[in-house]
Order: sequence, then C-alpha cells, then structure tokens
Amino acid sequence: MDLKDLLADIKNYLNKEVHLWGWIRNHRDQKTFGFIDFSDGTCQEHLQIVYDNNLANFNDITKLLVGCAIEVTGKIVESKGNQAYEMQASNIKLLGNCPEDYPIQPKRHTKEFLREQAYLRPRTNLFQAVFRIRSIAACAIHEYFQSHNYIYVNTPLLTTADCEGSDQMFKVTTLDFNNLPYDSEHKVDMKKDLFNKLTFITGTGQLHGEAFAMAFKKIYTFGPTFRTENSNTKTHANEFWMIEPEIAFCHLDGLMDIEEDMLKFVVNYCLLHCQKELEFCDKFVENGLIDKLTKLVNSKFTRITHHEVIDILKKAKVKWEFNPEYDGDIAKEHEKYITEYFNGPVFITNWPKDIKAWYMKLNDDDKTVAAVDLEVPGAGELMGGSEREDDYDKLIKRAKDLNVDVDTVDWFCNLRKYGGCFHSGFGMGFERLIIYLTGVDNIRDVIPFPRTPGNCDY
Amino acid sequence: MDLKDLLADIKNYLNKEVHLWGWIRNHRDQKTFGFIDFSDGTCQEHLQIVYDNNLANFNDITKLLVGCAIEVTGKIVESKGNQAYEMQASNIKLLGNCPEDYPIQPKRHTKEFLREQAYLRPRTNLFQAVFRIRSIAACAIHEYFQSHNYIYVNTPLLTTADCEGSDQMFKVTTLDFNNLPYDSEHKVDMKKDLFNKLTFITGTGQLHGEAFAMAFKKIYTFGPTFRTENSNTKTHANEFWMIEPEIAFCHLDGLMDIEEDMLKFVVNYCLLHCQKELEFCDKFVENGLIDKLTKLVNSKFTRITHHEVIDILKKAKVKWEFNPEYDGDIAKEHEKYITEYFNGPVFITNWPKDIKAWYMKLNDDDKTVAAVDLEVPGAGELMGGSEREDDYDKLIKRAKDLNVDVDTVDWFCNLRKYGGCFHSGFGMGFERLIIYLTGVDNIRDVIPFPRTPGNCDY
Repeated sequence: MDLKDLLADIKNYLNKEVHLWGWIRNHRDQKTFGFIDFSDGTCQEHLQIVYDNNLANFNDITKLLVGCAIEVTGKIVESKGNQAYEMQASNIKLLGNCPEDYPIQPKRHTKEFLREQAYLRPRTNLFQAVFRIRSIAACAIHEYFQSHNYIYVNTPLLTTADCEGSDQMFKVTTLDFNNLPYDSEHKVDMKKDLFNKLTFITGTGQLHGEAFAMAFKKIYTFGPTFRTENSNTKTHANEFWMIEPEIAFCHLDGLMDIEEDMLKFVVNYCLLHCQKELEFCDKFVENGLIDKLTKLVNSKFTRITHHEVIDILKKAKVKWEFNPEYDGDIAKEHEKYITEYFNGPVFITNWPKDIKAWYMKLNDDDKTVAAVDLEVPGAGELMGGSEREDDYDKLIKRAKDLNVDVDTVDWFCNLRKYGGCFHSGFGMGFERLIIYLTGVDNIRDVIPFPRTPGNCDY
Repeated sequence: MDLKDLLADIKNYLNKEVHLWGWIRNHRDQKTFGFIDFSDGTCQEHLQIVYDNNLANFNDITKLLVGCAIEVTGKIVESKGNQAYEMQASNIKLLGNCPEDYPIQPKRHTKEFLREQAYLRPRTNLFQAVFRIRSIAACAIHEYFQSHNYIYVNTPLLTTADCEGSDQMFKVTTLDFNNLPYDSEHKVDMKKDLFNKLTFITGTGQLHGEAFAMAFKKIYTFGPTFRTENSNTKTHANEFWMIEPEIAFCHLDGLMDIEEDMLKFVVNYCLLHCQKELEFCDKFVENGLIDKLTKLVNSKFTRITHHEVIDILKKAKVKWEFNPEYDGDIAKEHEKYITEYFNGPVFITNWPKDIKAWYMKLNDDDKTVAAVDLEVPGAGELMGGSEREDDYDKLIKRAKDLNVDVDTVDWFCNLRKYGGCFHSGFGMGFERLIIYLTGVDNIRDVIPFPRTPGNCDY
C-alpha cells in the first residue's frame, strides 16, 4: 500500500500488519535492534521502522545503507519515540542496493550541489515538497477552470507565424546541419524542411486560444513554453510552463475578478492539500510562508492605474535606481514598493501602449492599452493580461505600427470579422506561482530538469 | 451566465429573466417574430430564442446573420416547439457582426473543408463535441492519477540525449540558418548554439519519468510530444499529446491492472460528463459509439502472450496480407482479428526483444521482453508499456547492442545503481484515446491545430 494512505488512516491500522515498498532515508542500528527512516515518496512524512534480532536476516539488515529500496512487512504500533506511530517489522527484504558513495546522504546539501544531481534530488525532503506542491497546484488549476466551464485547449507549439519576433523563438528543423540544401539564391532552402517553411516553437498559445474562446466562450491552455533569452537570472529559464486563459464577453474588470478568484482558489487548495509540504517549506525555506499564503487568500487585491502608480512612486521619499516615468515600464524596486505600500497584491491597469503587445485593446486616450499586471508581495509580477483589441482596423494598424508580419496571423485578425466580441485573457508563468507557493527563490529549483543557457543536461 | 449552468438547472429559471452572451448558430425570421438558434459554447446544447416586433430594434434583429455575437436578455418559458424550454427575448443587442460570406454556415460541411478553416471549425457541432470531450478526458486522466497518489511531472522537451535515434527528433536551434558558425573542421559549430550542443525536442518523457518514479513511487507525465515522421496517414501527426505513467515496485501484471482500471475510469467519466457530446457523435459519427464505450467499461480485458497470439493467427482460416511470425510484429489486420476473436480489449505480453525498446526488461528466455501492448476493438494499439530493465549490466548490454549512445543517458542507467527496484510504465497517445472516444477516425480532426508534413499553418 501507499504510505500516504496508511498515514491518512493510521488509527485504523493500529496493531494490524501492513506491507510497504520504499526507500531507506536514514538508518541507525544498535547491537540488537535498529531504526529505519522509511519513505515511499507518496507523502512528505516518513515512517519509522523498528526491527530487532528476532529477524532471521538481522545482520544483513543492519548493513543496509541509505538509499536502498526495500520491501517491509510489519505491525503498526504506538511509538515510544517522537512520532505517534511506528512499524514493528516482521520482514525486511532488500530490493535494490545503494552504494556508500550515493550522493544523497541524510544531511543538508546545497541547492547548487543538488542541481548537479538533478536526477537524484527529487529524493530529498526539499524537492519532495517542491514537486509535490507543483503537482497539486497543477491539479488545482485544472480543477478551478474545469469547474467554471472552461475548455482545456492544447494549442500547438510548432508554428510558422513569427508574430512574437522570431529572434525570441527557437527554430525547429529536420534538416542536417552539415548537409543543408540551398536554393538558387544561395540561401538555405526551407522548402526542403518537413513543413516546407521555416518553423519555430512558439512562446505563447494566446492567438490560438482566442480562436477557441470565440467558439467555447471560456478556455485555458496549460503547457510548456519556450524562450531563447540568453540570460542567467533566478527567474529565467528557456523552457517553462504557462497557463493562458482566454474569456469571451469579458472586459478588464471581469478579467481581474477571474485572476483574483483563481489565485485565491489555487493557494487555498494548496493550503488544504499540501499541509506537510508547506510546513516543511515554512520551516526550512521561507519563515512565515503559511502566514503569507493565508493572508493572500483573505486579502482584497488593490486595483490602480499605471498613471496612479507613477504618481505614488514619484511622491515616495526613495532614491530610485530607475526613475519612474509615465510612459515607461516599472522596475523590480517599484513593484516591491507598491505591493508594500498597499500591503497586498496590486492590479496595475492601463499601461502605456508603447511597452505592451500589439493585440492589446487601445484605450480611448490613444495612449494607453487595457492591460493589467498583477503584482504580488514577494513574487513580483505573477500574471499579465489584457482586454484584446476587438476592432479589426485598429488591430491591423497596431500590428503594422509594430512591424508584425500580418500575413502570418491573418486568421487571428479575421476573428474580429466573424462574430468577434470584447474578450480578455491573461498568462501566468507556472514556475513563478511555484516560487511563490514554496518560497524557493530560483526557477532552477522548481523545474524537474531546468534548461538554461548552456545547460541542457539530463 | 453560462448556458451550461442555465440548462443544468432550467426548471429553477422558469419565468425568470436571464442574461446571456453568445453566438447565432441559425436564424429564421417571420413577419412579426423570429427564432434564433443560440449557443455560447459552454455546452453542446443550444437555446431557442424567440423575439417579436414588440422589440424596439425588431427590424435590425431580423437582419442578424449566422455567426453574429449577441447579448440577450429574456424570460425562460416552456416552449411550444420541439424543445422543452426557450427564451422569450426582451432585449437583443449585436456585439459583433458577421458577414454573409462567413464560411461556417448551418449545413453539413466536409471535414476536409473544415480542416482548411481550422480557426473557425471549433464553432461547428462536431468540433464542439470533439474538443469538449478532449478537455473532459484530459480532466479525467488528471483526476484518476491524482486520486491514486501519482505525482504529475513536467518532464523537459528540450534534450541533448539522442537515445531514441536522433533522426526521429526535431533539432532545435537559435542559430541563423543563413549565417551559421563553423568550426575548424568546417562543421557547423554547435558550441555557439544556446545550449552549446546539438539539441532536440524529445519524443518521450519516460527516462525523466523513471528518475521521478524512483523518488515518488508513482508519477505521470501529460504533455506534447513530437515525431519527425514524414508520413501522411490518418493516425500520424508530428505534434501530439502523450500520457506516460511510471510506477515503482510494479511488475507487468500490476501495470496491466493499472492500464485497465485507468481506461475504464476515463471512459466512464466521459460517459457521465459528456453525455450530449457522445450522443451527438453516436448519431453523426459512429453509430453504436455509446454501446461500444459502455461495453468496454464492463468488460474484462484478455491477457495473452505474443506467442499465443501468433498461434491463434496461424491457425486462423484467413489469408493474411502479412504473415504472422513468432519473432515479428503484428499488423493492423492481426490486431483487428485478435480483438474480434476475444470480443474485447486484449493485452498482448512478452514480445520478441528485437522489435522492442532497449530499456524493456529481458525475460528469462533471453528472447522476449516483458512488454505489453493494449489492443482495443476499433482503435488498435491504445497503450504500450513494459516492465523496465532494472539490472544495470543487462541494461548497458542492451543499450550497446542497440547502438544507444550510453554517455548521454548515463544518469538514467545509474538509477539502477542507487536503490533501483522493479518498475513499469506505459505510454498512451492522447489523440488515439480521443479517436476512440469520439469515433472520429482522423487524428487531424481531434487536434485543435494539427501539424503534419507540409502543414504547419494557423
């Protein structure tokens, strides 16, 4: 059985014999008995297994090292130690040995060391907590959207549209780099490639998501996303996961309602379903984590315009590294100040059009777009969204102004011709959410096998 | 509100005013009144909206064409027509116009025509049903694994390991094809690429999944997968979605239990949650679909070895196109015969080692591996899995025999050294499941925006 199910109902198993498979996380042996710290990875908690020299293979058991896979049978009994219950083993069988030089020993390893052991680090308490929270948060996201009548859409990753700026996208090919076909103009002949065109991995599912929102009213995507950014920071990876909901008949205010409701649902879901994992992170990663999350669930998010934010920043008695400007973006230091100023999450709306994407709805002032970023204390920008431009002519004009190759997205623009309507959507980087939920501050430590410039091992 | 919520509780809305947003799917107008066939895409069912010349904008409303986005307010009343209820409109407002040449008219379009309109086809009844079933089936898969203590793992797509045969994987690059860097041997210098190496998009998450199964006992992946196959059949696409569970402490029999249990759960979940969608598919796509699915849920899957299958095929009084061989694969015609022979799903186990992957567990006969394919009536091979080779030396030998570049998967092989254990896993092509669930027979019609050789538009 799974340790998770055993522990969830342990009183009912008292004095009964159970059968478990798992791994030795720690081992102390005395002359006539021993203690095994046992985990099967189905929950954060371990089980103490006590054995003694009544077992026929007692001597062999005492030699078992940390990391060994074992099969154990025994009775659940009340414990005299720190834990309430333990197992009195009647049989312990070695299934998979583990040598003395096993890198994951029961001591504190640095996160940097564990990154070098990406295939073994999920066995540590920290990564058990992080990846279990990641799994349950993903489940919460699906549950939220499904229960609110959203359709989950698997938008394609392969694309021939270069609307996002092709320099930010990976190129994809089946051609042999050392035997490339050339056309009559001595350029690589992409017509010989599998899709007969230069093809990319897209960095967003939004355009395709909009097509589905115009058919299903409410949709969401949840899948991997790619950026070619050659930057080595704590928050950048070249492969990560995104959630991109898109909602027809929804203005900016309605979008903020959805973002706030969804985030509170997901955080609350994790508080309920990842209690032990969050306690671990609270104790060893970010003190006060559970208070922070509980506070978010009970807070009312502030809604304020970009212009008002700049007003506040300009009035602040702070020496800024970057000067706040009415027509400019806001820096990390500003984000931090604003969330502290309002003591909670802040929606910042109506951004200068020149720093936002071409498909965002132009406001009547002709200067700002109906975009919204959600700034969260301790996490920075967690979501970015907007109402979409639903006027065909305005959309085409913005696209041309920003040098978007309209021919590759004509179908997307046509959505405005065929029963288009006001609609809005947002994107949330899944890893940024996990960073917020766990307190772990480096994106490399919330992705199973992170890909960053120069790092694509494992 | 959503039409889905209204219809689920329609009796409670009788004689009450409701407010809806959605699209005109059909429209008949008479001199003094009219009928709008209305859908908002949240459910398969439509709502009939009745309006008359008491409305101030009656003349404008009569001119609204199919495809228009509208906002309607009205009272829910019992209907005199075919449907039980309808809306008596008090206000209809045009939100987004639709021209007369709108390609999606209320008539039967061929699937081939609709593929050319990939961004509009989700508005048709067929694709409403298919993509809603797809969304709900995905939800069922997550629900099954989460409720059985599995951890959802997002394994990476970018990889530098070429263990599957690099010719089956797309290459990924940030280099400029028309300005490639060369090394001193006049080969393209992949050290200048973002990851300093030749990089691929992987076709499986299994290797990474195994690393996580050795930490969490039970895991699953669910994400996009890529193949470079240049083949134009009804069942091949270059981008599709896969589910890959991996289970520690699990032999082949246990794996078959899980596959059978999971499939029955998912099919039953869809029978319960996609009733209207399945009824549509049963009527217009595959007659008898619901019976087929119900039968599967209540059937006991047969378990038989590859050798026994060949025995049966050889004894069959059928003139085969491909001769059944004890050391060979089985063809589509054989799959069909066997599922008809047993009148239900069939697990075929213990396949000749030479036609299966290098990481599958070698049986004691040294000729077969502990692999299992699940053959389902009308769908062919739906899942493929195996017990994994857990002996380090045997694994390395098989890898070398099959020319796998062991250096790129040394970490995977090392899993056998550090507390390895018997474990098994399988893969299920998500689109193949959707084909089975909907009766739609072409993979291009169950993927939102399909990618096949030469086709990467939209």
